[in-house]
Amino acid sequence: MENFIYYTPTKVIFGKDEEKKVGELVKEFGAKKVLIHYGGGSAVRSGLIDRVKKSLSEEGISYIELGGVKPNPRLSLIYEGIKLAKENGVDFVLAVGGGSVIDSAKGIGYGIANPEIEDVWDLYIGKAKTKKCAPVGVVLTIAAAGSEMSGGSVVTKEDEQLKRSYNTDNARPKFAIMNPELTYTLPKYQIACGIVDIMMHTMERYFSPVGNLEITDRVAEGLLRTMIKYGKLSLENPENYEARAEIMWAGSLAHNGLTGCGGIGDWATHQLEHDLGGVYDIAHGAGLAAIWGSWARYVYKENPERFSKFAENVFEIEKVGTVEEIAIKGIEAMENFYKEIEMPISISETGINLSDDDVLMLAEKCSNNGTRFIGAFKKLYKDDMAKIYSMAR
Amino acid sequence: MENFIYYTPTKVIFGKDEEKKVGELVKEFGAKKVLIHYGGGSAVRSGLIDRVKKSLSEEGISYIELGGVKPNPRLSLIYEGIKLAKENGVDFVLAVGGGSVIDSAKGIGYGIANPEIEDVWDLYIGKAKTKKCAPVGVVLTIAAAGSEMSGGSVVTKEDEQLKRSYNTDNARPKFAIMNPELTYTLPKYQIACGIVDIMMHTMERYFSPVGNLEITDRVAEGLLRTMIKYGKLSLENPENYEARAEIMWAGSLAHNGLTGCGGIGDWATHQLEHDLGGVYDIAHGAGLAAIWGSWARYVYKENPERFSKFAENVFEIEKVGTVEEIAIKGIEAMENFYKEIEMPISISETGINLSDDDVLMLAEKCSNNGTRFIGAFKKLYKDDMAKIYSMAR
Repeated sequence: MENFIYYTPTKVIFGKDEEKKVGELVKEFGAKKVLIHYGGGSAVRSGLIDRVKKSLSEEGISYIELGGVKPNPRLSLIYEGIKLAKENGVDFVLAVGGGSVIDSAKGIGYGIANPEIEDVWDLYIGKAKTKKCAPVGVVLTIAAAGSEMSGGSVVTKEDEQLKRSYNTDNARPKFAIMNPELTYTLPKYQIACGIVDIMMHTMERYFSPVGNLEITDRVAEGLLRTMIKYGKLSLENPENYEARAEIMWAGSLAHNGLTGCGGIGDWATHQLEHDLGGVYDIAHGAGLAAIWGSWARYVYKENPERFSKFAENVFEIEKVGTVEEIAIKGIEAMENFYKEIEMPISISETGINLSDDDVLMLAEKCSNNGTRFIGAFKKLYKDDMAKIYSMAR
Repeated sequence: MENFIYYTPTKVIFGKDEEKKVGELVKEFGAKKVLIHYGGGSAVRSGLIDRVKKSLSEEGISYIELGGVKPNPRLSLIYEGIKLAKENGVDFVLAVGGGSVIDSAKGIGYGIANPEIEDVWDLYIGKAKTKKCAPVGVVLTIAAAGSEMSGGSVVTKEDEQLKRSYNTDNARPKFAIMNPELTYTLPKYQIACGIVDIMMHTMERYFSPVGNLEITDRVAEGLLRTMIKYGKLSLENPENYEARAEIMWAGSLAHNGLTGCGGIGDWATHQLEHDLGGVYDIAHGAGLAAIWGSWARYVYKENPERFSKFAENVFEIEKVGTVEEIAIKGIEAMENFYKEIEMPISISETGINLSDDDVLMLAEKCSNNGTRFIGAFKKLYKDDMAKIYSMAR
């Protein structure tokens, strides 16, 4: 068991109609001028942005807007947001959307709070460091990324096809309003991608090279069982409030640190997916599903007991056969669940057919030209990455 | 399912040797002058207070001290602390101890931050209100109360034998250092009392009159199973680091709100115990254990399914017989566990023999002379309270 820090200062306001409180909350956290940041037109068309504006106005908070965030949020829009924020004296970024919008808002927050850092991208590639981030608030509309309670953000630099992350406690949102009803209109494909992402945030922490606290394992297993049950119910009926609420809250708990207390996260599947997503613009959740099984088969022999425990406690697989056999059954059960929710378990199913050269190019990128390893359950170097990308084709 | 707020801003620093960081943390949260608050001599004798002082001095933080907190913390010492703090310009209260010390520190924090409130006791009896509390930090030495992450505090007014609580978000500690090793020297009786308290914080929320989120139930059940396993191991060998760590972290999670998301807490057992403890100075955990079974038998028919679920998912009781039979088996299993860890399951086992008049006096106190009800799973009025006190004798 490792020492750990658990720090989740985000105030969560969960339930029906709670988005009405956004003005009150923004005020509580001291905002004077807000940048409302959002994605495509759905938040506008649904009337959500209007309701947000109304709530801000009622509290006497002035605001400007910047829409247009796309999945795998772009550095170029973050630059635009920083410029706009500085010109207008913005001191609070309000993300109305899912993980991409929140991550973009955090990027803008870094820009606002650190005028001495000329290029905010330097934070994401390790050339600069800061603890400061302008306050970010969230009205969540997609349950997936967990960014509403995390300090992390992932940004894509388009011209280099590079996707990188940066993490500080001050980027943790001040508040997150979570009304499950706001997720009703999401397309089923995106719901399924979110289910994978949430489960993967838990599993990346579950497959720790050292034992997590047992209570952490119990929480993680309970969360995964909840996802399996309510994931399917969400897809059957996206307006099932209970199901959407379970998924939405699981999304936050999966990524606020709770499911990793006492352990060391692996994160290899995420790293492998980030480079796949940086080059091919595949949906993050679909990419994770396409890679995970291959990662699992490549690494499980490091600690088959961990995988057999996963099989038994998450999928209720009987203790019959060797530990390795049970481990493999758990991996298969996970893949079968992904199939059930129509997620890919190989990259080709997403329409991307990787050549041998593509595989090597991805391994080059993911290993920073062979200068870094990823993973913790098993450390993976460039050759390992290439093998997993190849297995996952 | 109810709407809910989840807000746990306390920064948790968990693991071996982490108390060395106390100076750094106090500084991070802006303290200039600290009041070190503690209980009996054990924190001094063990050298912990000296290590805390050393860490503060290394960061250039000045401090004064106030020891002497007793279980069921006294209002009189809080008055003394407020006076001392005001005279010395204290702006941060550092609690080194368990729930009683932390609650006393919160009481002092209210006094410091609200000079316009003449008597801090007014907060506890509903005569005054505030959101302000001076910042409190914690070095935890007892896993039990969960006060290290909660906004609640419970104080006893000695001359009236009244025990009352007050709860605000600003009283949530800024940080909590949790080194399981600091709990090694605790007497076994106190360890057992802590185990009961932690489990009861979870169960008070589990027995909600509306369905909690299912993920909340899974977390609560996992926490209770962890407590049953590691509670026994803690008592067998108090220096079992893993066991003490599981219990310590469970203690915080049980009371930071996580185990109640989406539900409505009951809290009747706590309320009944508070008045018992206010009059008789019984250890809080022992009092809860002595009352719970009688409460459960008195109320379970309101929703036997909830109790049978508890029996099945926490104690793995087979689905044989009627729902009511399974429910009763769960109550018995809980009481058997209390017996195993040498906790009372009736008040007389603690040496307190209540007369009929005593029972009525307690019901009078607990109902504020018949003016309030307690509980949510089943609302309990003065007569109900008297019946439960009587059953629990």
